[in-house]
Amino acid sequence: MGVELTLPALRDLSEGAAVLGTGGGGDPYVGRLLVERQLRAGRTVRVIDVAELPDDALVLPCALMGAPTVFWEKLPGPKGITTALRTLEAHLGRRAAATMPIECGGFNSMIPLLLGAETGLPVVDADGMGRAFPELQMETFAVMGVPGSPMSIASDHGDAGIIDAVDNKRMERLARAMTVQMGGSAYICDYPMDAATVRRTAVPGTLTLARRIGETLRTARERHRDPFEALTAMLAGTIYSHGLVLFRGKVIDVDRRTVDGFARGGVRLAAMDDPADVMEITFQNEHLVARRNGRPAAIVPDLICTLNSETGSPVTTEALSFGQRLTVYAISTPAIMRTPEALDCFGPAGFGLTEPYTPVEELTASHLR
Amino acid sequence: MGVELTLPALRDLSEGAAVLGTGGGGDPYVGRLLVERQLRAGRTVRVIDVAELPDDALVLPCALMGAPTVFWEKLPGPKGITTALRTLEAHLGRRAAATMPIECGGFNSMIPLLLGAETGLPVVDADGMGRAFPELQMETFAVMGVPGSPMSIASDHGDAGIIDAVDNKRMERLARAMTVQMGGSAYICDYPMDAATVRRTAVPGTLTLARRIGETLRTARERHRDPFEALTAMLAGTIYSHGLVLFRGKVIDVDRRTVDGFARGGVRLAAMDDPADVMEITFQNEHLVARRNGRPAAIVPDLICTLNSETGSPVTTEALSFGQRLTVYAISTPAIMRTPEALDCFGPAGFGLTEPYTPVEELTASHLR
Repeated sequence: MGVELTLPALRDLSEGAAVLGTGGGGDPYVGRLLVERQLRAGRTVRVIDVAELPDDALVLPCALMGAPTVFWEKLPGPKGITTALRTLEAHLGRRAAATMPIECGGFNSMIPLLLGAETGLPVVDADGMGRAFPELQMETFAVMGVPGSPMSIASDHGDAGIIDAVDNKRMERLARAMTVQMGGSAYICDYPMDAATVRRTAVPGTLTLARRIGETLRTARERHRDPFEALTAMLAGTIYSHGLVLFRGKVIDVDRRTVDGFARGGVRLAAMDDPADVMEITFQNEHLVARRNGRPAAIVPDLICTLNSETGSPVTTEALSFGQRLTVYAISTPAIMRTPEALDCFGPAGFGLTEPYTPVEELTASHLR
Repeated sequence: MGVELTLPALRDLSEGAAVLGTGGGGDPYVGRLLVERQLRAGRTVRVIDVAELPDDALVLPCALMGAPTVFWEKLPGPKGITTALRTLEAHLGRRAAATMPIECGGFNSMIPLLLGAETGLPVVDADGMGRAFPELQMETFAVMGVPGSPMSIASDHGDAGIIDAVDNKRMERLARAMTVQMGGSAYICDYPMDAATVRRTAVPGTLTLARRIGETLRTARERHRDPFEALTAMLAGTIYSHGLVLFRGKVIDVDRRTVDGFARGGVRLAAMDDPADVMEITFQNEHLVARRNGRPAAIVPDLICTLNSETGSPVTTEALSFGQRLTVYAISTPAIMRTPEALDCFGPAGFGLTEPYTPVEELTASHLR
């Protein structure tokens, strides 16, 4: 059943997941090394389609919660995530049949693979964000009525907890407060559900999408082709159908703080050929809105990716620094993430932005050359 | 088994508990009204000696956690504390045989009575603080090695959680963060233990002590006797053997903030007959140290009580205001609370104070007239 994860596939998946992280989600690099170590030690990870599970099979999604600026300094290990899984299993009185990402973008694409290698559980090829988002209620699961509670939370120190909140936003607040006390990062399992519910509410095939994005960028580099053109051509055949270059420039300013358990701030880029042509991106872990000379060029939940202009390699918000030459690349989100209910949850209003949501393909049609 | 709580006994207990609150623990007034309503509705509360329980009977202590400044504005009801009890019972897979206070001082003397009335559980006449303290690890239970985890926590909104921390200080930090997110107050059950452990680690008879303090103050008022002399005479026959007046004055300044889930600050009093003779008290929910003209007159864990100079009625930190005429009254803590291990936990160092602990009866012998 499923596909066994190989080392080359893991590397492609890791790079693609950083693209889907849209600047956030944490750099998957360390997570990839942790999974690589497991594979080299002879453990296996099976990635499966949710169709392979019986309707009533229990799926426990998992993630690392907190600020990517913390993951960067405090390396995660496999112990905490296993504690989170066992804590929720004990609370529910049932064993999980599979795990899956709640967030396919960034570091959190690696956490279910790590848990799969540790426990032997297969990893479902789907997630609830279709990218990375900073808060726990920002899930297609939540949009379609799945409660995130009960959830488990565990620290590197051996602390564990269960949160059973009356709604997903309160769950986020309670878990965020615990995460801050746990040192700024914590392991969680939330949105416990059966396979039938996963089929109905998840964004499908996102681990495969991440692997294909990574493969596309790698192949373009190997063949000395333009990575952005290759990416746009590949995405055209997926449910993330529009991929396009918004801006090419160099970083002239970065403002980044770790506040209330998030990495918040912004980055400004000036065009290479015209210093007065400026793109400003605001982020809360992930990039939320990109404004070119004050006018929105792309806005959440569409993906805004900061990629190295030479190689197409993703640069996460915690790695942004003055002088980097970056290409701001936008990817349209699939239809399941653009419904009115989805936009209420993780569209601009979900982040306190006052601009309405406009699909990136419409914004760019009017703005770009 | 045990003694059924009467309305007059409840009123005495409530006033005595406010004295044992040493300025903190929250004013028991509202809690008393909630218990009164239960008694008037025909429910009963039995207060028992722990000797009446078999060794292996499960005792689940309970409390309201948070800042007394919040209790004052956000009235607690009986639902949250029952949720906390049932959540911990479900987690342990066992039903409780009794509840008890973790803190006999202040509002938290009333919470177990409320839970007892709601559920029919008897309430053990003992606690883990022998007064009020602001933090969850400040328990004789903890000093003698009882883990506070697993604990349950519940909000007025219906949220519930379990915290299973590796030590009691980490438990405090995690629960405090949850409490702040729950609106500044939350219901908890912690230090689950059997009756044999209660007998070994609790401060015995503290609900009875609170009742007797209240009875003493009431009787003195009824008989137009000095309430402070009456209190000193009564305490002489208990394990809290030294009760003494430290200072009589009026409030000339109050500094009170709600910070990180605590009421922090200080109060200054000037002597009635000499405005240059000043007592300054520092508090974190509870009064921690009283300094007279800069020199310590009493220090935690000895009790520092701010009492109305006319009536002996306790005045909690959240009710302190300019111009009040107060008598600062100190009570020595029992031996179980003065061991080196106990002082490490809830002596001056436990609150970041640099003064060493000196028993109040020694300090006053050198300072007072």
